[in-house]
Amino acid sequence: MIRALFLFFSIVTVLCDNQYAEKRQKIIEDERRISLGGNIKLTDKEEAVNKCIMKYKHSELDFAFDNPQFFNFSHHYFLYKEFIPNSKVFKIIKNMPKGAVLHVHDMGILGPDYLLNVTYMDNLYVCFQTNGPQFRFAYKTPSIACSGQWQLMSEARRRSRNIRDFDARLRKYFTLVVGDPDTVYPSITESWTVFMDYFVTVAPLLSYRPVWEQYFYDTLLKLKNENIMYVEVRSVLPILYELDGTEYDQTVTAKAYKKATTKFVNDYPEFVGAKLIYAPPRKVDKATLTNYLDTARKIKEDIPEFFAGFDLVGQEDLGKPLIEFAPQLLAAASEFNYFFHAGETDWYGCHTDDNLIDAILLGAKRIGHAYALPKHPVLMREVVNKDIGLEVNVISNAVLSLVRDVRNHPLNIFLANDLPVVLSSDDPGVWEADAISDDFYVAFVGIASKTADLRMLKALAINSLKYSVLDSKGKTNALNRFNLHWNQFINNFNCSSY
Amino acid sequence: MIRALFLFFSIVTVLCDNQYAEKRQKIIEDERRISLGGNIKLTDKEEAVNKCIMKYKHSELDFAFDNPQFFNFSHHYFLYKEFIPNSKVFKIIKNMPKGAVLHVHDMGILGPDYLLNVTYMDNLYVCFQTNGPQFRFAYKTPSIACSGQWQLMSEARRRSRNIRDFDARLRKYFTLVVGDPDTVYPSITESWTVFMDYFVTVAPLLSYRPVWEQYFYDTLLKLKNENIMYVEVRSVLPILYELDGTEYDQTVTAKAYKKATTKFVNDYPEFVGAKLIYAPPRKVDKATLTNYLDTARKIKEDIPEFFAGFDLVGQEDLGKPLIEFAPQLLAAASEFNYFFHAGETDWYGCHTDDNLIDAILLGAKRIGHAYALPKHPVLMREVVNKDIGLEVNVISNAVLSLVRDVRNHPLNIFLANDLPVVLSSDDPGVWEADAISDDFYVAFVGIASKTADLRMLKALAINSLKYSVLDSKGKTNALNRFNLHWNQFINNFNCSSY
Repeated sequence: MIRALFLFFSIVTVLCDNQYAEKRQKIIEDERRISLGGNIKLTDKEEAVNKCIMKYKHSELDFAFDNPQFFNFSHHYFLYKEFIPNSKVFKIIKNMPKGAVLHVHDMGILGPDYLLNVTYMDNLYVCFQTNGPQFRFAYKTPSIACSGQWQLMSEARRRSRNIRDFDARLRKYFTLVVGDPDTVYPSITESWTVFMDYFVTVAPLLSYRPVWEQYFYDTLLKLKNENIMYVEVRSVLPILYELDGTEYDQTVTAKAYKKATTKFVNDYPEFVGAKLIYAPPRKVDKATLTNYLDTARKIKEDIPEFFAGFDLVGQEDLGKPLIEFAPQLLAAASEFNYFFHAGETDWYGCHTDDNLIDAILLGAKRIGHAYALPKHPVLMREVVNKDIGLEVNVISNAVLSLVRDVRNHPLNIFLANDLPVVLSSDDPGVWEADAISDDFYVAFVGIASKTADLRMLKALAINSLKYSVLDSKGKTNALNRFNLHWNQFINNFNCSSY
Repeated sequence: MIRALFLFFSIVTVLCDNQYAEKRQKIIEDERRISLGGNIKLTDKEEAVNKCIMKYKHSELDFAFDNPQFFNFSHHYFLYKEFIPNSKVFKIIKNMPKGAVLHVHDMGILGPDYLLNVTYMDNLYVCFQTNGPQFRFAYKTPSIACSGQWQLMSEARRRSRNIRDFDARLRKYFTLVVGDPDTVYPSITESWTVFMDYFVTVAPLLSYRPVWEQYFYDTLLKLKNENIMYVEVRSVLPILYELDGTEYDQTVTAKAYKKATTKFVNDYPEFVGAKLIYAPPRKVDKATLTNYLDTARKIKEDIPEFFAGFDLVGQEDLGKPLIEFAPQLLAAASEFNYFFHAGETDWYGCHTDDNLIDAILLGAKRIGHAYALPKHPVLMREVVNKDIGLEVNVISNAVLSLVRDVRNHPLNIFLANDLPVVLSSDDPGVWEADAISDDFYVAFVGIASKTADLRMLKALAINSLKYSVLDSKGKTNALNRFNLHWNQFINNFNCSSY
């Protein structure tokens, strides 16, 4: 406070040199104006809300500026995540309508407690191998190869004699969160290995058809409860199965989504809906890609209104670069919206950041991550000119070892230049984050300028609808509903209740 | 290799779609052309050298790409510095003429072994306090306040009975290097505290007049041996003293520099010389700043040809923002070249990165660090328009806790946009780095694009002369000499000798 007063008087002193003060003010205002949300005009009521948010934000930042050793965002997310719910800024953000989530992977959303509950369902078999449990729902003992013994989960749990310990040990396979992340995840190799193991472990749990349908319904509920109104979900489309071993083809998986969404929108008509991005693994050969594209075609034909487009997933450095698939993808470009993961890497001048070039040339509607983009000034211009959405996932990038102190995350550069940013959460359940609120909080307090305010938050929410694949009527409808919710949020806002 | 071949054939396949391939190639070439050094044409001989350097660089990067857990540059500098001398790229860089060093602090250059040697000089007294040793050269026991006992260093060493252990313990006060940096320096608070303690400890060792003169001579020798031809050194200008307690004023300190430089250039006429930037601490009041500026005037009057300009130093977040001094600095702007430290911070929208605005408005000729610049698009444009040199110190920024994985250092953005970058080393002795070669190596292999080559290295060397304060005749002379050395380096280059 004393510092602020002192600074104020210093600035006033300099005001004596009018020219200097004017030039200085012009720079500050120019930078604010060209930043994301910089042109938004707030209503009086919004101004009041903004004042409250900024009071809380500045209180967090002023403390951290004076005590940088306690600044959470300079440390690993796992070391501060438990304190986030105490933040008043976070509580406000959680209540705030945030529009849509456009970059999220189906099996990484609901988190370990949900998954642990699934293991209490009937007919679940487990086989404990040295590298973790293998699961399968079935009427009888599965004949799937396993280095351990298949047994009923209920039996295994009963025999453990200490169910609390048993469940605690089991739960660890459903999360990346650990108490000593800097030791457990010294590099991208370790974090991605555990991350991939997670999916291998949970896929057979979730792809049991009744679980799958319920899981996605519950996903939508979690999103709705965080004031999200629409989602475009990525899926590898695992093969669904029944207790008798029946396996379906992938169009059934896609349709299960639609079914769950229809039911959900029926139950909660204020929710706009969901669409599906088919996003199979990128570490495959060309023949497999051809099959992928055929599957995409089938799904698009089956459920055109539910199908959003195509992407490829997996640790980008280890996967195939897009250029290898460029002829095939180019040939199919008129059929599909592309949402390629590209530049999710710290490397520079390697095929991983070159994926940004191909994502753009292949006509991607949005790019997943685009972490490496600021090193590519020509591509940055292309992104602006072609208005390509950038799906930024800050906690994911921190947890998956791209950046430690999130103040070094390129999102701050995207925000400063008003790039078409869409904030998302990638796999929030895997790191036990909220569906999207944690990412908004980290971005708003940890990454954006101290001066970034409600304008930026509102712009991010609006961007998430603007860069969705909703058609123009759908977008208008979604934006109208968003404004309705937004105004409710503003009108009901009570600073002292936080 | 197989990956590279595979990639090559994929690109060839895409070439079938000529338009796609052309667009892709154009983007790659446009980005190369607008990057630092992108327009340099290499001679045939330079091309041969380049081929050798790139072979070694790619061999390091290809291994790291496939084994990111072993990529040194993603870890703390202290954890990989011992391996640097094994790198062939490093050996080449060490031999390569690198032009000038423009951002380096006098007392942080020569390193702990040099300082330990100084403690073997006669007439040195030491007082061991709980937080470290206090030193003073004197004829008799100093009467300077100290919580321990003053004794002759030679006596203390003799009484220790184990000189090796004694010296090893003593040496720790002369370096930041530790085996477990992530534990010792969890945040900027810890690294800067130890960093500041270093200066408090070594100042009385170095400011004994005979040591001071020799120290700077030896500094120039170290620079010359790393193929540096010119330096602009920053100094707080400590008060020099004699054994009998005589203390001089700061102009004597400045003149001692000139004396050492004259002697050095006499001994090594191929060395261009040195100039002084007076850079006292920034955490002071306005009256003290007035005194600083008076001192600067006196020095400029005394040794105009040796005096380069003015700056303020210290942990920027904790120091006074430039805006507080703006009226005084603006009034003196016609008298001095300014080289302000600004934006040496991870904060965004705080007074520390706002220092970038004031540095520019106050007419800084160069900016120290400018780490926060990419978050300020308007200021980035100003830097280009006004051609303000950016003194980038990558290892310093890593050691002093701004960034962990240096691939997140903003230098890559500066390089991609051909900003006026001058690579420097800040306080290499404090982290036991070479005078400048380590910084070049980390920048070239760890930060710049994999495709950045000899053009970039040459451009960095030329920038260091271009952005010096040498007058136009001096610059022409320096550039001629540089070209001479450069051509010698190229002509004598033998790839197999590395």
